[in-house]
Amino acid sequence: MTTQNPTPLPEPDPSAFTGDDARFIADFATLCTFGATPGGGVERQAGSAADGEQRHWFAGLLRDAGFEVVFDRIGNQFGLLELVPGAPYVVVGSHMDSQPTAGRYDGAYGVLAAAHAAFRLAEVYRSDAAAGRQPKYNIAVVNWFNEEGSRFQPSMMGSSVYTGKLDLETALATTDAQGVSVREALESVGCLGEGDGPRAAFAAEIHIEQGRSMERDGITIGVVDSNWAANKYEFIVHGEQSHTGSTIIEDRKDALLGASMLVLTAREIADRFPGALHTSVGHLNVYPNSPVVVASRVNLLLDLRSADEEILAEADALLHQRVSEIEQAAKVRIERRTGHSWPVTPYQIEGVELAEKAAADLGLSHGRVKTLAGHDSTNMKDLVPTVMLFVPSAEGISHNEHEYTRDEDLVAGLHMLTEVLGKLVEGALDES
Amino acid sequence: MTTQNPTPLPEPDPSAFTGDDARFIADFATLCTFGATPGGGVERQAGSAADGEQRHWFAGLLRDAGFEVVFDRIGNQFGLLELVPGAPYVVVGSHMDSQPTAGRYDGAYGVLAAAHAAFRLAEVYRSDAAAGRQPKYNIAVVNWFNEEGSRFQPSMMGSSVYTGKLDLETALATTDAQGVSVREALESVGCLGEGDGPRAAFAAEIHIEQGRSMERDGITIGVVDSNWAANKYEFIVHGEQSHTGSTIIEDRKDALLGASMLVLTAREIADRFPGALHTSVGHLNVYPNSPVVVASRVNLLLDLRSADEEILAEADALLHQRVSEIEQAAKVRIERRTGHSWPVTPYQIEGVELAEKAAADLGLSHGRVKTLAGHDSTNMKDLVPTVMLFVPSAEGISHNEHEYTRDEDLVAGLHMLTEVLGKLVEGALDES
Repeated sequence: MTTQNPTPLPEPDPSAFTGDDARFIADFATLCTFGATPGGGVERQAGSAADGEQRHWFAGLLRDAGFEVVFDRIGNQFGLLELVPGAPYVVVGSHMDSQPTAGRYDGAYGVLAAAHAAFRLAEVYRSDAAAGRQPKYNIAVVNWFNEEGSRFQPSMMGSSVYTGKLDLETALATTDAQGVSVREALESVGCLGEGDGPRAAFAAEIHIEQGRSMERDGITIGVVDSNWAANKYEFIVHGEQSHTGSTIIEDRKDALLGASMLVLTAREIADRFPGALHTSVGHLNVYPNSPVVVASRVNLLLDLRSADEEILAEADALLHQRVSEIEQAAKVRIERRTGHSWPVTPYQIEGVELAEKAAADLGLSHGRVKTLAGHDSTNMKDLVPTVMLFVPSAEGISHNEHEYTRDEDLVAGLHMLTEVLGKLVEGALDES
Repeated sequence: MTTQNPTPLPEPDPSAFTGDDARFIADFATLCTFGATPGGGVERQAGSAADGEQRHWFAGLLRDAGFEVVFDRIGNQFGLLELVPGAPYVVVGSHMDSQPTAGRYDGAYGVLAAAHAAFRLAEVYRSDAAAGRQPKYNIAVVNWFNEEGSRFQPSMMGSSVYTGKLDLETALATTDAQGVSVREALESVGCLGEGDGPRAAFAAEIHIEQGRSMERDGITIGVVDSNWAANKYEFIVHGEQSHTGSTIIEDRKDALLGASMLVLTAREIADRFPGALHTSVGHLNVYPNSPVVVASRVNLLLDLRSADEEILAEADALLHQRVSEIEQAAKVRIERRTGHSWPVTPYQIEGVELAEKAAADLGLSHGRVKTLAGHDSTNMKDLVPTVMLFVPSAEGISHNEHEYTRDEDLVAGLHMLTEVLGKLVEGALDES
């Protein structure tokens, strides 16, 4: 079985475009060089050197376009354009941080598209073309800190602090596997600022789909109308340290055996609800992790996701029933620490309809989709009316170096985001 | 379920003994302070600061008794007493390095008992009492490097290099999880020496049993007549990195799911041969180990052990059959890297009989036992006739802070080792 696609990805190619579109693809090609991996992806986890480098490069890009660059107290990076003194902002963007050995598009595309959309609108409002177009809000391009949550948990950290869902001090004190705190990481790359960031009136984000539905349905723009519900747990399996060679099997209290049963259980539960439930364990640490010691402790993160809250509840009950059975079977104790959960929540229907009209006006094929993954916009939509857009992602591959979206889809998404952002800035959702 | 014994262990108490025995228990109490853990155990992995401290303390103890201290090219520590110029050595000892959060006795007892046995014999040969006792060999007390293999794999590294089973440069270049090499670790604690160490004629080791059989049978001295056979493997499970939230279940190639199936399989196979087969996975690492990424790679170490080579072969065949099934079930590829294997091999019968006679002469209850765990003597017995002795270990608890052997058993073992060592030094096995 081959586990990697051996075909190199096409490089972003500005020569196929002209004017601003070519400049956008050229900037995206530059962005792909930060933390580039030999396998054609990127690795720039939150607060890493590569993350710092791309943030400083992005600051220069924003300043050159006349935007003021500020970092807030959790390292969110904003490029501010004041069009209406004192008015609140349309906050548009995504995140540049990545998973380890990740793809080029996840998050990064959305930040750069937001900047270029804002650059175009800045030009519009500056020029004669603005005669009939009057901004009512300011624009804040945003690069949220630590959306990925690979180095520092939880994910969506920057937007969670911004929206008041996560305590600032808790976030800053969070440490990575080497004991480095968020505060230290942000200071080391010069990205720890002050204050709460700009006040939002509306928000918008564009992202790759990370699923196959748009590719299957042949549509260019996905208008996200809701997210899947999710329950995320940290489990700690407690066993007892002993010698793997000499301890008789019936005396063993093997934390790794119990943890492995949990991993299998998660999959078995998903298999009961084909297509309707996603479960996974991506993170698991063994202590003391010595070849000749029965593990005394295993920490793991397990999540359950569904678009149907009843299925999620049923799956959750099954999981907790199985936890008790595993405790007996493996002679371990399983401690559950709730991570975070979210219900199925809709994006505001006015925003969905605005986006659908914009796509129609631009002649872009579109359809409503749901997001299975969490995004910063999942947080923002609980604060202000928010528009979430997708472009297709080849074969749904994501969190993988072979993640790929075609240049023409990137550019179509940029046009779409520019249209939506302009409408938001001009007050199209003022009644919502 | 409680997973830790809350009762503090009794401290070694010299006041219950007199003379050399009291000095031995007092020295053992000192040895327990190096790398002492709050839970009553020790943590002094190979080449760590705590390991370096105890080695330098031990060097002083040996020098004070008139022994010459040398480190060989893989960091084995020898205390040499030349009694017969130019003659080869009886090599007696064990290892002082420990697992993480380990017990006080594993290895450390055997090194200190060897030193004290040698001190007593040195005194005997120096004094009038030696009139009727004539040494034919020299004595080398040994503290083997990295028997445990928790920080650097494989285990039994020092004795494997000494006996020519492991290439020196390979061993020195081995790195720990932080990328520190054996060479760097040994240099950092000042324990990297030169040369091959003393030439062995015979070897002896005493160790705690790490099993329950002697406690159950009520015997003080175990004479080890063979070791269990073992097959140890490194498996690498290859999956494909993808997004845990959005990737549909049937598209997933989850390396952690495959690895968990291997962990369960190991236990299921052990359950087919109750009491006759031990299996375990103690070490498992996940990549990229991010909460929202399906794992692309899991490395794990799996071992199978039995006193019956036919059972081991049958279990091994079952395991490999299951590996293919798991590859299909979890859509992963499983790469096997053979670690090391050893058959059931006897300790030389002449040595067993010598030890049995010594125990009888001393009036110590004794019986033949097998070792399930590997020991440095497992290597030494393939080079020279070797005597391996056990003292009881409470409840068989080992590789755990609650590992415990009573002071009176420690002292009985010291008397026994002194007797055996004297006989070896005086040529009792010359005909073997």
